[in-house]
Amino acid sequence: MTERLYLYDTTLRDGQQTQGVQFSLTEKQQIATALDSLGVDYIEGGWPGANPTDSDFFAAAPKTRATFTAFGMTKRAGRSAENDEVLAGVMNAGTPAVCLVGKSHDFHVTTALGIELDENVENIRASVAHLVAQGREALYDAEHFFDGYKANPDYALKCLKAAFDAGARWIVLCDTNGGTLPHEVHQITKAVIAAGLPGDHLGIHTHDDTGNAVACSLAAIDAGARQVQGTLNGLGERCGNANLTTLIPVLLLKEPYASQFETGVKRDALQGLTRISRKLDDILNRVPNKASPFVGSSAFAHKAGLHASAILKDPTTYEHIPPETVGNARIVPMSNQAGQSNLRARLADAGIDVAPDDPRLGDILNRVKEREDQGYAYDSAQASFELVARDVLGQLPRFFEVKRYKVTIERRKNKRNQTVSLSEAIVVVKIGDEKKLSVSESMDASGTDRGPVNALAKALAKDLGPYQDIIDDLHLVDFKVRITQGGTEAQTRVIIDSEDRDGHRWSTVGVSPNIVDASFQALLDAITWKLLRDGAKPA
Amino acid sequence: MTERLYLYDTTLRDGQQTQGVQFSLTEKQQIATALDSLGVDYIEGGWPGANPTDSDFFAAAPKTRATFTAFGMTKRAGRSAENDEVLAGVMNAGTPAVCLVGKSHDFHVTTALGIELDENVENIRASVAHLVAQGREALYDAEHFFDGYKANPDYALKCLKAAFDAGARWIVLCDTNGGTLPHEVHQITKAVIAAGLPGDHLGIHTHDDTGNAVACSLAAIDAGARQVQGTLNGLGERCGNANLTTLIPVLLLKEPYASQFETGVKRDALQGLTRISRKLDDILNRVPNKASPFVGSSAFAHKAGLHASAILKDPTTYEHIPPETVGNARIVPMSNQAGQSNLRARLADAGIDVAPDDPRLGDILNRVKEREDQGYAYDSAQASFELVARDVLGQLPRFFEVKRYKVTIERRKNKRNQTVSLSEAIVVVKIGDEKKLSVSESMDASGTDRGPVNALAKALAKDLGPYQDIIDDLHLVDFKVRITQGGTEAQTRVIIDSEDRDGHRWSTVGVSPNIVDASFQALLDAITWKLLRDGAKPA
Repeated sequence: MTERLYLYDTTLRDGQQTQGVQFSLTEKQQIATALDSLGVDYIEGGWPGANPTDSDFFAAAPKTRATFTAFGMTKRAGRSAENDEVLAGVMNAGTPAVCLVGKSHDFHVTTALGIELDENVENIRASVAHLVAQGREALYDAEHFFDGYKANPDYALKCLKAAFDAGARWIVLCDTNGGTLPHEVHQITKAVIAAGLPGDHLGIHTHDDTGNAVACSLAAIDAGARQVQGTLNGLGERCGNANLTTLIPVLLLKEPYASQFETGVKRDALQGLTRISRKLDDILNRVPNKASPFVGSSAFAHKAGLHASAILKDPTTYEHIPPETVGNARIVPMSNQAGQSNLRARLADAGIDVAPDDPRLGDILNRVKEREDQGYAYDSAQASFELVARDVLGQLPRFFEVKRYKVTIERRKNKRNQTVSLSEAIVVVKIGDEKKLSVSESMDASGTDRGPVNALAKALAKDLGPYQDIIDDLHLVDFKVRITQGGTEAQTRVIIDSEDRDGHRWSTVGVSPNIVDASFQALLDAITWKLLRDGAKPA
Repeated sequence: MTERLYLYDTTLRDGQQTQGVQFSLTEKQQIATALDSLGVDYIEGGWPGANPTDSDFFAAAPKTRATFTAFGMTKRAGRSAENDEVLAGVMNAGTPAVCLVGKSHDFHVTTALGIELDENVENIRASVAHLVAQGREALYDAEHFFDGYKANPDYALKCLKAAFDAGARWIVLCDTNGGTLPHEVHQITKAVIAAGLPGDHLGIHTHDDTGNAVACSLAAIDAGARQVQGTLNGLGERCGNANLTTLIPVLLLKEPYASQFETGVKRDALQGLTRISRKLDDILNRVPNKASPFVGSSAFAHKAGLHASAILKDPTTYEHIPPETVGNARIVPMSNQAGQSNLRARLADAGIDVAPDDPRLGDILNRVKEREDQGYAYDSAQASFELVARDVLGQLPRFFEVKRYKVTIERRKNKRNQTVSLSEAIVVVKIGDEKKLSVSESMDASGTDRGPVNALAKALAKDLGPYQDIIDDLHLVDFKVRITQGGTEAQTRVIIDSEDRDGHRWSTVGVSPNIVDASFQALLDAITWKLLRDGAKPA
């Protein structure tokens, strides 16, 4: 008989505390959808009322299978739960579950809040009772619980019991400062259960300040806690929260957890884990951590010669799990064999059929690797990948040739001493025997300079003669820039998402130390791919 | 009475298995020196004979206080230890200690080596006996020990005993594939000790494939092991080794370890930890991981408004250790999450003192929020934040004015039909009454076009008259681009990290729909901030 273990995601709330991370409304919606497809049990969306983005997000709440949860804090002293406007802001979001953080460490009650210990207990009780009376599932985040327990176990337990007796579904033991070690989490969680709080009402919330967030979460589960909180890619305040991208595969694949528990995330959904992890990095424009457990691009890379040769005999010699279980892939530098089955699958996606023993498969793989060494990334730029493959296979028509381009960016003060800027692009292409010269500037309808890439895109698409009908409806929907390598050797990678009027989307990539030139390459690929897809005939 | 716990560093050997890492001879020497200044007990230098760099490094062995160690493998079957040329290559390095990896998992003996189980035991015995006869301190790395113990405990223990009885000073339990969880490491290490191998002869070597490398190391120490292996910044094969940059402060600062153990690293040396961690990233040209426990730049960053206000009352409210203990620093970033208490703390960091009731605090906060709505991000760009604050406070001197700039990017085919590109920038500044016109192009020494931002940066810094001395040593070390908002309304955010010859670093931000103009703003802030910091007098 398996037991139920609940996964609680706080990427959208505690994850937003990561330095440098500021989600937009659209990003929050995308992330919530990805989390829901994975299957986590709870999605904490943010703190309604605390900032405009969080309020807007709850107002346009996505439909999720997961229990959608609003975060807030227990009512303040000196007013009733009903009359606390911060708490009212949280309740107004109308979520089925509400998680309120409150104190459980005596030092924080007296130092940070400056109120009496009993007042705090009453604030907890009244707040939770208010949630329950309003028909919400109530969660109580016991902030600094482990430090509080070490300082004053009776008081810390009293806070938990106030929440539990008032009807909280979950009491979450939080190691807010992240300094507690796994053996302490284990002992203290056991003590909490021994004091009468049932394990299937206890959650664990850890941070990675000692590199032990995952281990502390497991230690609490070992002791009996049945809800675990964390974030995708371990985002979060300071060193981050427990990384769900690590914890989830540990819980689903490793014993004793795999046999003992059932969670909202099913074994099959694990295959989407690497993709979801990379998607989050894409949204945040962060460079994915290669060394991430399970989902990092190096997680199954076998560099040591001894390892690589044994892997060829039997992958279990140097792999703790099969990489495909989590949607990742083995990398054996110096061995092209590993990649060919992946490659054929991707070619099939592009409608290109190549026999398994075709030697050109190796040629394509070499070309892709060579370009990836230069900074190209084909994981998301499927359209550019297809162009590379067709080029190697001799299936890429030459629609037109760009002879040259020139872009000028100017900024100056005008006569009224206002700063004005303008970009201008000239593109010369040859179609068949005909040479065409186009010029565009970057000003949009509102008079704003939208920059050199905009001017270049407009000039390039302005007059492509016989192809004009096909590319007229093409427009840029996203543009991502990443610097690969550091310092003076910096290369710029640009990924462009394009869309046509039928809503088809495709992604292309360009790389150069010159950001405008990298963008130009990606634009060129975007146009070429559309001509190819729509069956344009070379002039 | 404290016990001795030994720290064994393998950055130069297992750390070199990191994907993308390849140390040069000089880099190995720099890292060995840094490790020795920290105080680790053993430095494993590499595998002499395996590659030219490792051989050269041992030939020019640095003098270290730490026990310098060569790595190799147990002799192969069918020859004596004396006649194994791989082992001879390792011995020839002449190090006081030698660590040999060998099998202890029956499956690997038969599958990877293809020899009899007893042959392997004899190889271990004879190899260790050979080291001891030659007067070396012998270490035996029991590869795949935990998996081997789970599969066949008798055989795994037999391998360990062969090494121990032959005189090995240390038997190192290796979780080579990184899949073992902390509770298993704890149980199995206890079982090894119960089987007669003394804990003060046992080492632990873990990998981070489940995010538990640090926890597994602690679990082995808890069970009685007295040597712990790891790498700086957690470098290593796949997901990396146990991170010594995390483990060392845990062992020195956290109980029960701090009271129980003495190591080669002393409390005072910990203050050098952050510097050593960053130095390694510098050597490898890697972007430091902000979220690294203890040494990451975000490890003591307090972004949540509630945290920041409590930190001002007492830093222990939200910090598990004082950041200066490990040579790190507290950061209270500014963002739209934060309120006035964050703001005052950040102003204080910049040396700006504003009274709590000063209405200009509200003005600064409004300006910051307004600019964040436009796409600016100040939580990493502290230097730009400081300029905004000083501007509101009327404390920003006007050093010079940029009248205009013009950047040209051209790509064309040359006479040999090669594609060539070049960028050129003209900048016109006014300093006092003097107008200065500078021009630069983007070509670097190797003839590569490094793009428009490079040309602009060079032109801007080319001739700033009276300020030239101050900005001469300024150079760009990192450049990050992010598109905020999507589609046609896209804004580009550029963050630039600059450095001077004293190693000071500062970050600035620029935002515009025009990527070149966003970069220009960030460059301008970088120069202005340095002029301000170095006390330049406005012309």
